[in-house]
Amino acid sequence: MASRFFSFVGGHDGNWRVTKMASVIGESLESVDRVEVVEQRIEVLPAGAKWILRGVTSFERYVTSREHQQLFSAQPPLNRAEATCAALIPIKKLESWWQLSQDDRRRVFEEQSAHIATGLKYLPAIARRLHHGYELGEPFDFLTWFEYAPRDSTAFEELVAELRRTAEWRYVSREVDVRLERR
Amino acid sequence: MASRFFSFVGGHDGNWRVTKMASVIGESLESVDRVEVVEQRIEVLPAGAKWILRGVTSFERYVTSREHQQLFSAQPPLNRAEATCAALIPIKKLESWWQLSQDDRRRVFEEQSAHIATGLKYLPAIARRLHHGYELGEPFDFLTWFEYAPRDSTAFEELVAELRRTAEWRYVSREVDVRLERR
Repeated sequence: MASRFFSFVGGHDGNWRVTKMASVIGESLESVDRVEVVEQRIEVLPAGAKWILRGVTSFERYVTSREHQQLFSAQPPLNRAEATCAALIPIKKLESWWQLSQDDRRRVFEEQSAHIATGLKYLPAIARRLHHGYELGEPFDFLTWFEYAPRDSTAFEELVAELRRTAEWRYVSREVDVRLERR
Repeated sequence: MASRFFSFVGGHDGNWRVTKMASVIGESLESVDRVEVVEQRIEVLPAGAKWILRGVTSFERYVTSREHQQLFSAQPPLNRAEATCAALIPIKKLESWWQLSQDDRRRVFEEQSAHIATGLKYLPAIARRLHHGYELGEPFDFLTWFEYAPRDSTAFEELVAELRRTAEWRYVSREVDVRLERR
């Protein structure tokens, strides 16, 4: 469970075919056909690729011990055979978010926005891995990767719509939504 | 206040002369005469240098809004003319620390160990900047840099001794203590 580095390479190659790409807030990313998910730090854009997004898994920032137990007992692994749909959602938050103290961020994140409680409602359908880019100086502070079965697509749309209506999302300055299908 | 990258280069050059280097817990660092503090990411060991320690400043992990105000109003800036002494203290914590939930880490950090309250007692004498290495995959999770005047040396020894007796320190797997004087 040590910190692990991931690179998401957008271009013509990769195991995931892009079905939709849209800007939710701010500037989009250049359109690509496929995304390759690589568990290492890739510095140089491979030939034919348009972009690389980088992030690291890290310790949990807001989850309490009790919430961790609830999440841990309900969350599915990645790479389930039936989970042929994925979403890559890169997010950047305003500097005013990072200026908040820990208790104020927790208050917005959970007491006001129910980020964890909302996520729990969609388990065990939707698998998720969070990658952090803030400390790396990357253009996005978070890269969230979701995997789900086609039958859970409607539930996934509800999940992202619900989160985007929260107080937490007022601190989002840029968000791109990339939907994918396993090749 | 965005995240800023720093490199500490140990070798024969640099504005800070090493007066003492000691391992507190675990393996030490190779002995050097001087340390250069550079506000950028240095990848390649310069000629004559023995090591580079890297870290980024980042958002506050445990401080509440009220504690932030107390710290903010009392803490001195770096680079005070009288603060000719410095300490570079690289620390690595056990994986079991990172596995704790946020509320459990906060409990150990402050309610059990009074890390913030202890630091506050030594303000405004001791200036400090914390650099994070965990997300970077660096050998140390934290690099803490302190600056103080020679007359506050005894107070500084008390501060580090007090912290090393806490419950939080049971999670420290490696700690090196490098003391320096401005050239």
